Amino acid sequence: MPINRRLLLASRPEGIPGAQNFRADTVEARAPQAGEVMLETVYLSIDPAMRSWMREGTGYQQGIPLGAVMRGGGIARVLESRAEGFAAGDFVQARLGWQTHPTLAARYLQKLDLSLGTTEDWIGPLGLSAVTAYFGLRDIGGLRPADRVLVSAAAGGVGQIALQIARIEGCRVTGIAGGPAKCAFVANDLRAHAVIDHKAQADLSAAIGRACVEGIDLYFDNVGGATLDAALAHLRAGARVVLCGRISEAAAAEPYGVRNLGKLAAAHGRMQGFLVFNYHARYEEARIWLAARLRDGSLTQRLHILEDLKQAPIGLGMLFRGENTGKLVVRVADASV
Amino acid sequence: MPINRRLLLASRPEGIPGAQNFRADTVEARAPQAGEVMLETVYLSIDPAMRSWMREGTGYQQGIPLGAVMRGGGIARVLESRAEGFAAGDFVQARLGWQTHPTLAARYLQKLDLSLGTTEDWIGPLGLSAVTAYFGLRDIGGLRPADRVLVSAAAGGVGQIALQIARIEGCRVTGIAGGPAKCAFVANDLRAHAVIDHKAQADLSAAIGRACVEGIDLYFDNVGGATLDAALAHLRAGARVVLCGRISEAAAAEPYGVRNLGKLAAAHGRMQGFLVFNYHARYEEARIWLAARLRDGSLTQRLHILEDLKQAPIGLGMLFRGENTGKLVVRVADASV
Repeated sequence: MPINRRLLLASRPEGIPGAQNFRADTVEARAPQAGEVMLETVYLSIDPAMRSWMREGTGYQQGIPLGAVMRGGGIARVLESRAEGFAAGDFVQARLGWQTHPTLAARYLQKLDLSLGTTEDWIGPLGLSAVTAYFGLRDIGGLRPADRVLVSAAAGGVGQIALQIARIEGCRVTGIAGGPAKCAFVANDLRAHAVIDHKAQADLSAAIGRACVEGIDLYFDNVGGATLDAALAHLRAGARVVLCGRISEAAAAEPYGVRNLGKLAAAHGRMQGFLVFNYHARYEEARIWLAARLRDGSLTQRLHILEDLKQAPIGLGMLFRGENTGKLVVRVADASV
Repeated sequence: MPINRRLLLASRPEGIPGAQNFRADTVEARAPQAGEVMLETVYLSIDPAMRSWMREGTGYQQGIPLGAVMRGGGIARVLESRAEGFAAGDFVQARLGWQTHPTLAARYLQKLDLSLGTTEDWIGPLGLSAVTAYFGLRDIGGLRPADRVLVSAAAGGVGQIALQIARIEGCRVTGIAGGPAKCAFVANDLRAHAVIDHKAQADLSAAIGRACVEGIDLYFDNVGGATLDAALAHLRAGARVVLCGRISEAAAAEPYGVRNLGKLAAAHGRMQGFLVFNYHARYEEARIWLAARLRDGSLTQRLHILEDLKQAPIGLGMLFRGENTGKLVVRVADASV
């Protein structure tokens, strides 16, 4: 049996999570029973939602018990299958956990259709971050061509897809990112119409006003807090605000007080959160659309790849310090088909 | 010609508006030209939105110029008509302004259908506050039977109708009001399932938690600020927050910072403002529904009536100090048909 290296939750995070919150162990991988599949983890996705999972029973899901394997989604290779429809060598997407060799029930696995894209595409622009951007913009945000769209954390995993979907659909898009490298990526690779480097702004609201001179029809918020507040000041009548993430608030001692909700009311606008899991039955719709845009070259995605499972906790810290450019993933094993 | 007594905007409000912001004058009423109607104002509605109109070019409408007649809606009797479809003795609803004898173009008037209700009903439960409650709850809030509904300013003009619509539709409704008299009205006349006296609570959020033990599916917010923040803490999954008014913020030196938007995101909820004027084509739908509920006795409304035009500025101050019980109106002339 292969050895299953695991990372267990050792403590709940205060401020930015990192290596101090995890401990490693090794166990023997478990042979699959009927209906199960033994897997080799290939990629793990590092996502902002993970910090809320590390807490105790807050957020939209049960917290992870201390001592349990850290929760996380990714892509894996089937090593041994005792489930119909799965064979050794297949690739699947699943909530694998931070471990090299999970054995899972087949009902929790989705087999990858490698005609839509590579394994890198499936962790990237066909992955859950991209699907989140798709439904957030379209179903929650009611994206319309010619909308003036603002996307925060525009170089991040969800943001870069959201920005590009809006651009592809004919919107005028402004991205907010931190630092010259990310801003160059947003302008040149993602082809935003305008970019705001929030680290270079003393007054973010004024900078948004200069970049979005006609105001904002749709704000796709990955950040929360002061950035959300600044964006609210520039809403146009009938604007929509998609609450997708609040990464700015993870490390804050107390929640930020948003003062511009009156602007939302005055604009008779809508602000809405969502759970991508509620769109599960429609993931294929999103992936077919995204795969077509990958093929025609209008959609790109940059992965920020860390090597080896042991880097996952470090990646989590990088994510909350904004140190990644592109969607952050950990390569746990060789991904070649 | 009758004398037209008017109240003009003399200064923009700081804090709570009142008599100090207006000055009175008298002019001769203007004879109607072709397509116009000369009116005698009967009732004027005193509404929270008025304070935003008194400011300079903020809010959802142009501010009223200094020296102009104060803007305000109400009910009037036709004295003389040079417009088809209107005759002396008819009653109309219109944005009359704070004056006893406006002369207006017929296209700005809506003739009252007195088969639906009395003139008091038309300033009250068939009036614009009631129509606002109807569309706010149903179209913006997506009201569903069995929703757990919370209404703030539940004894006020919009709140009392919103609370009753929710109760009539089979929801479990909690009202928030200030002081024992209003709370008794909300419990006994409006028949709320639970009432919270916000003036008697050191911790409003805790009080909401006790009154709404299962949480909130729909919060109809007439207040904004700290009350909105407290309600957000108790949202159930998929909750809707209707931003209808922010009366708590009118007199505040600076906007309140709402800290619980994370709860909206975690509940994958929706928060939305609206303009009742956008529902203009459907006002009749609301009034037919409301009139039917008036006839069957399930809907009631208490008017708080001040006598004489000169009380209007005083009423505005009462409104923002929460001193009215029921929908606040000024009787400018005898209302009998």
